[in-house]
Amino acid sequence: MSQVLTVQPLTREAFAPYGDVIEAAAGSAASVYAVNDGRAQRFHDLARIETSDAGGRTVMSIFRTEAILLPFEITELERHPRGSQAFVPMHSVPFFIVVAATATDGLLGPLMAFLTDGRQGVSFRKGIWHHSLLAQASGDFLVIDREGVGDDNCEVFELQTPYTIAAVATLA
Amino acid sequence: MSQVLTVQPLTREAFAPYGDVIEAAAGSAASVYAVNDGRAQRFHDLARIETSDAGGRTVMSIFRTEAILLPFEITELERHPRGSQAFVPMHSVPFFIVVAATATDGLLGPLMAFLTDGRQGVSFRKGIWHHSLLAQASGDFLVIDREGVGDDNCEVFELQTPYTIAAVATLA
Repeated sequence: MSQVLTVQPLTREAFAPYGDVIEAAAGSAASVYAVNDGRAQRFHDLARIETSDAGGRTVMSIFRTEAILLPFEITELERHPRGSQAFVPMHSVPFFIVVAATATDGLLGPLMAFLTDGRQGVSFRKGIWHHSLLAQASGDFLVIDREGVGDDNCEVFELQTPYTIAAVATLA
Repeated sequence: MSQVLTVQPLTREAFAPYGDVIEAAAGSAASVYAVNDGRAQRFHDLARIETSDAGGRTVMSIFRTEAILLPFEITELERHPRGSQAFVPMHSVPFFIVVAATATDGLLGPLMAFLTDGRQGVSFRKGIWHHSLLAQASGDFLVIDREGVGDDNCEVFELQTPYTIAAVATLA
């Protein structure tokens, strides 16, 4: 028994309650300007990095991941109360994103699911419930998150009713 | 009149004096462990991020760059005295790296040139002389560096004798 989760294309507007979309697109950056003798454009400051509270520091890591098989069952979400976490594809692999707002009673709000276009990354803001990485194909992702010794920075929420990501044909 | 710069494949060992190679490879990470219910391996903490001195913060940006045409003439290097700067390809585009050590007399040591394998990124340590991004094909690169208001964080060194990156056939 599980409920089908509708997957929508990732846009900055729809994702704004959960974090930032990391992409070189109009309006995505704090500013855009030419660099490197005009050979490149810099889309500057694309995501809020929240990793440097007391005892924290920013780390870059690579997740080398397998693809998920559809349909995929969502049984739990996680969150990092002490830091943001960004995922950026290194080989143009699209990935699914599942997030939920925290309701005022401490429970989860409705789950939302997105699929990136292969050029997009995201950064989850501190404390946002999200599923772990769900890649459409195997590949490497750059991860920018918080390292802190001795802190519990990962909480897990088990869903009472699982959700399912069905075929990509459901993409709105 | 310019001197040909020999380009070598990028390895962590050869690049160690200048910074870190960002790649999911044996020995590249502080630690490697399974995440995401075993679907992924985390190559943890791949580069030293030096961006959070007084007034500084870490920012993520995208450089959307053109390819360079070979032969390419190297006429200047730059350095960021207040922060590290990392470049990670988002679409498997290889890039050339030109770096130089600072000699004890304040002048530049010998120039070194590397070519990445398309899966590798690098982080230049604070104050390391390097050329701006030299991509083998057009594409997007994620850049992780320091933002600080009002600081001069870019110095330029004009070379008295230019160097040339010749055809890739020179790759050792």
